[in-house]
Amino acid sequence: MKAIGADSNFNLDDGNLFYEFETAIQEPKAHELRIRVHAISVNPVDTKIRKTPVEQAPRVLGYDGVGVVEAVGPDVSHFNIGDEVYYSGSPKYQGSNQEIQMVDERLVAKKPHNLTDVEAVSLPLTGLTAYETLFDVFKISKNPEDNTGKSILIINGAGGVGSIATQIAKHYGLHVITTAGREETLEWSKKMGAEIVLNHKNDLAEEFKKYEISEVDYVFCTFDTDMYYEKMIELVKPRGTIATIVAFKEKQDLNLLKPKSITFTHEFMSVRPLHETEDMHIHRDYLTDMTEKVEAGIYKPTVTEVVNGLTVDHLYEAHVKLENQSMIGKLVIKL
Amino acid sequence: MKAIGADSNFNLDDGNLFYEFETAIQEPKAHELRIRVHAISVNPVDTKIRKTPVEQAPRVLGYDGVGVVEAVGPDVSHFNIGDEVYYSGSPKYQGSNQEIQMVDERLVAKKPHNLTDVEAVSLPLTGLTAYETLFDVFKISKNPEDNTGKSILIINGAGGVGSIATQIAKHYGLHVITTAGREETLEWSKKMGAEIVLNHKNDLAEEFKKYEISEVDYVFCTFDTDMYYEKMIELVKPRGTIATIVAFKEKQDLNLLKPKSITFTHEFMSVRPLHETEDMHIHRDYLTDMTEKVEAGIYKPTVTEVVNGLTVDHLYEAHVKLENQSMIGKLVIKL
Repeated sequence: MKAIGADSNFNLDDGNLFYEFETAIQEPKAHELRIRVHAISVNPVDTKIRKTPVEQAPRVLGYDGVGVVEAVGPDVSHFNIGDEVYYSGSPKYQGSNQEIQMVDERLVAKKPHNLTDVEAVSLPLTGLTAYETLFDVFKISKNPEDNTGKSILIINGAGGVGSIATQIAKHYGLHVITTAGREETLEWSKKMGAEIVLNHKNDLAEEFKKYEISEVDYVFCTFDTDMYYEKMIELVKPRGTIATIVAFKEKQDLNLLKPKSITFTHEFMSVRPLHETEDMHIHRDYLTDMTEKVEAGIYKPTVTEVVNGLTVDHLYEAHVKLENQSMIGKLVIKL
Repeated sequence: MKAIGADSNFNLDDGNLFYEFETAIQEPKAHELRIRVHAISVNPVDTKIRKTPVEQAPRVLGYDGVGVVEAVGPDVSHFNIGDEVYYSGSPKYQGSNQEIQMVDERLVAKKPHNLTDVEAVSLPLTGLTAYETLFDVFKISKNPEDNTGKSILIINGAGGVGSIATQIAKHYGLHVITTAGREETLEWSKKMGAEIVLNHKNDLAEEFKKYEISEVDYVFCTFDTDMYYEKMIELVKPRGTIATIVAFKEKQDLNLLKPKSITFTHEFMSVRPLHETEDMHIHRDYLTDMTEKVEAGIYKPTVTEVVNGLTVDHLYEAHVKLENQSMIGKLVIKL
């Protein structure tokens, strides 16, 4: 079967070092599913990992997949051959940029039956990131009434994570404020459920004044944490929580958190699969919940661009697009 | 009535700039109690604030008091004249280093009836810090069964905050590991309820191996956060939480939190009174709960040293002792 990988880390300026290769089909071990991949999505994390040293060549990227279960390992209890599933997977395995992929069943859920493959695959990684941030980090209540009057600021509301985080936060009763910089991103973010979309080209404290927003309970940064670090501290309530998914470029002054006793979390959705934590099955639980909500018409897929054919060129072009940081929603490649 | 204050910030090397002065007795305003102070305790925060610029001279320090309610303001609903109470208070008010003090009733609770004044006054500031860290930051369950198998590392177990945090954490079912460096502090920390006391003179990762401790769920730092920052990240579980009450001297690399998606909080118990948050009454609730637990014999006071007479000299000597960082438990001054 075919896979696309690279033997070393590279920048896009270096040219296209992705190549296609043949690799053996494996037999699933304990907990594993062998999945015939139908579509993948490309995330900013692909472009970041592409630039880190390769431990075992060739390295296959891709942290979102949708497809059909072809074989199941011993002890697999949640899935049968023929099930249509979706998942983000684990950085400990080869990624989804291949025709057939092995995935631990604790990281997989049935795909929503009312979505096409390309719609479904827009959701796992970004959805899991949003679920972990809202429920594990901010620990928002699952009872929307408890969240009445609570507010969240999502920086970069139209990105992949921002798009699904907005939908989930709104469903659970939070007052959702996002940021955007262009007319298209502003409209998209409103469509996702944002009640107020601030213009990120202006000072956000001024934007808060303009819209008469007081400090928020939660800030979720999905864009340039260094740039927003001090501003987020200014805009969050005393004893509020800030989470980011974007690594820092510089060291920061943690004492700035003290005057309001602020909590800061570096959310990273790969932590459970990477450390194979006892509660790793929460990824299956979250994805299963997302499937239910999608089937009930509550959450919508966030795909905005579909590319036909997983080729070396298409993958490179997708990385170029992601690195431009101008994506609205998600880019999906259909196999 | 008499108070002890200073007109400017000073280091202990500058000599004793505290002085005694007479000040008018005030009438309590809305929410306020006028309290005849019987005893105070001295905390590390007194020595830190002493070194910060004085906004309105003279400044009266002191963030723990016990005494009797002498007068109540309009709207006061929880207290009557003659009630024996204890509190930490608010940095927005003059502190407890005076004969009569004004305190907001939302920050006050009845003193435990089975404790003397000097025993009771050892608890408010350190107890509130421990309650906030355990319940608001770590969000531990109030049902001890839920906490079975969960563990906490408290750095500097024998200090004022460590002593009461150990008792509370143990009562709620956590496995409590502390650090200490001397025979006396080790014994004191065990007496407070620590199951394992590590030697802080050794590398804590080595100490974990020696006692066969795996990563902990929570780390609570009450001593030199810069020194322990990277070590705490090493010792906490994936998706674990670290809290500190000690300000940093240097900027830190927040990306170190990412590989385990760690949450970091700068706990600061003055935040609610400083910002007069809507939930400021939680301080009264926490202190009331502490009173109940003390009266039930569950929590013990942490006083180890009692000085008779609130004088300029005694206060200066107490600051010297606190700055030496060798205190076990709490130092109390009886008026």
